[in-house]
Amino acid sequence: METVSTNKAFGGVQGVHTHASAETGTEMTFSVFVPDVAGDRAPGAKLPVLWFLSGLTCTHANVTEKGEFRRACAEHGVILVAPDTSPRGDEVPDDEAYDFGKGAGFYVDATEAPWKANFRMRSYLEIELPAVIAEHFPADMARQGITGHSMGGHGALTMALRDPSRFRSVSAFAPIVSPLNCPWGEKALTGYIGADRAAWREYDACALIEDGARLPDLLVDQGTADGFLEGQLKTHLLEEACAKAGQPATIRMQEGYDHSYYFISSFMAEHIGWHAERLK
Amino acid sequence: METVSTNKAFGGVQGVHTHASAETGTEMTFSVFVPDVAGDRAPGAKLPVLWFLSGLTCTHANVTEKGEFRRACAEHGVILVAPDTSPRGDEVPDDEAYDFGKGAGFYVDATEAPWKANFRMRSYLEIELPAVIAEHFPADMARQGITGHSMGGHGALTMALRDPSRFRSVSAFAPIVSPLNCPWGEKALTGYIGADRAAWREYDACALIEDGARLPDLLVDQGTADGFLEGQLKTHLLEEACAKAGQPATIRMQEGYDHSYYFISSFMAEHIGWHAERLK
Repeated sequence: METVSTNKAFGGVQGVHTHASAETGTEMTFSVFVPDVAGDRAPGAKLPVLWFLSGLTCTHANVTEKGEFRRACAEHGVILVAPDTSPRGDEVPDDEAYDFGKGAGFYVDATEAPWKANFRMRSYLEIELPAVIAEHFPADMARQGITGHSMGGHGALTMALRDPSRFRSVSAFAPIVSPLNCPWGEKALTGYIGADRAAWREYDACALIEDGARLPDLLVDQGTADGFLEGQLKTHLLEEACAKAGQPATIRMQEGYDHSYYFISSFMAEHIGWHAERLK
Repeated sequence: METVSTNKAFGGVQGVHTHASAETGTEMTFSVFVPDVAGDRAPGAKLPVLWFLSGLTCTHANVTEKGEFRRACAEHGVILVAPDTSPRGDEVPDDEAYDFGKGAGFYVDATEAPWKANFRMRSYLEIELPAVIAEHFPADMARQGITGHSMGGHGALTMALRDPSRFRSVSAFAPIVSPLNCPWGEKALTGYIGADRAAWREYDACALIEDGARLPDLLVDQGTADGFLEGQLKTHLLEEACAKAGQPATIRMQEGYDHSYYFISSFMAEHIGWHAERLK
């Protein structure tokens, strides 16, 4: 791992780091906020880790600059890790569209050419990056939570539903709740995974719940003025799947909020507080 | 005035607006956060206004996206206005350097060609933009505070020292405290105002204090790891001028913080609280 930058913030350190990923075959960049390094923690004490998975077109930088998470992370003593949304580099295949290829990894392991060599964001986040975090940061990997925005909300929900034992807390901001049932998801999963829709179910939060996956609870915030709500995000499908399955869920429609970081930042501190409660 | 965008945030509205400025002869862009428009304020009630002046290379957008001011503004019921740092447009003269010309207006009225036609940021902020704010927003112009970063900290301190009756509260993040005594200031004021250094004194916080200007108090935060501290910002000159003149000042050296928005955002809520106390 190489450190690109560190900035002191809210008493802690906001870092940006790179490493050579075996999963994606590329150099990957991620950011980590570690609160209160020299503060009142006992020497050697480890802090819980919250993962933030970002949405289409984003890198680690969007939430790092605009997410307004550091005050709450410092208050609660939570490390926040923000990975990139896809492999990067000239050698990585891409698509001209904003919603496929670079910046749009959808948190899957691609099985289709030409994507399968590099687009392995599922294994990258399930196996490789956690090991890097555990090695280089004062992170208690027995206490992990996960959240994300839009495509990253989809990533957070599906990663947690596939492996509930890894995460003590799960939330999402304006998530894609069912790639099986929206144009973004249909395009991405057809491209990365192929036409067999049965294979998509492990990448669909609603399908995972229908198929029996369960979490202790989950928190979702969704703006009512989000231009993607009706055509892509379809929060009601998650509400229906949870209700039908008896999956506890706090799904809040937030009046007048859109899909931007103005929305995310408004509720970030509440989400971090919700995670911190479950990570203590 | 035309509204470019509005986003709901922290219960209020973050807007970006443009208007044709007579002072600069250009279209000018600025952002305004109005907390809690439909909330528990009495109908017709007006809110205090905090001005945030930005630093070199910035537009209104930097603090709007990365300043983390909205939570505290919503909590205290304070409007925040973020103007641009210079006139913009193809017809406006410019310089290749980052510290002169566009993005580097230094909050002066230029007297030298070719700058004097457009570079009138002092009159723009002292006369023209306040009238626009008063007309279009629920702003109580009898309760104004001002703050800013770096070049914008210089702008905030000098505007307040020249007209203490306008501002009830003044603070700055890592301000240029004496353009007479730093390379950024010498270059900009020579270019905009000319070689007569006596004419620069109304644009120099330390000189204004030496010449008798007084504020009830002022708050400055300065990071000790700021790469511009020694060569450009020279906080000690302000400490010395205040001490010599009996000007009350809270000047805090913040250990390990740099010149970035990671520093600004870390102390933004404290500054807004400090202003709010004086604006109530």
